[in-house]
Amino acid sequence: MPAYEVVVDVMLKPEILDPAGQAVSNALPSLGLPVATALRIGKHVELVLDAPDEAGALAQATTMAEVLLSNPVIEDFRVRLA
Amino acid sequence: MPAYEVVVDVMLKPEILDPAGQAVSNALPSLGLPVATALRIGKHVELVLDAPDEAGALAQATTMAEVLLSNPVIEDFRVRLA
Repeated sequence: MPAYEVVVDVMLKPEILDPAGQAVSNALPSLGLPVATALRIGKHVELVLDAPDEAGALAQATTMAEVLLSNPVIEDFRVRLA
Repeated sequence: MPAYEVVVDVMLKPEILDPAGQAVSNALPSLGLPVATALRIGKHVELVLDAPDEAGALAQATTMAEVLLSNPVIEDFRVRLA
């Protein structure tokens, strides 16, 4: 079976507070960096899967994201081919 | 100035061990999930910047990534428009 590179991006849902993103955002001006209107930090997972086709690889990655990579109570995720 | 949505993905350099990714990878079979040939976990930062144009927004985000979002000793980053 061919190998597919898949990317899963996991972000806190918009209504959930993101203290890490807030801390980075607050630090920008004191470092002389441009101010960000919004800034949120999530997880970026890069994986390689053996699957019969692209749809199969995306389906496998979606299952992984639902079960292991994300917490569905507080996080959303997006799956795409790299 | 228009607002641009920019994404910064920060990953450990390939030669740096990724214990979190390894732990997830090892957990897959015992959860009945498909096995990943490779799996690495990084940070996914979504931000909104006011900039004169797309190139300016990407340049601002690159500066932020270099100075604050990544550790250049152990991490690589990629910047793109969302």
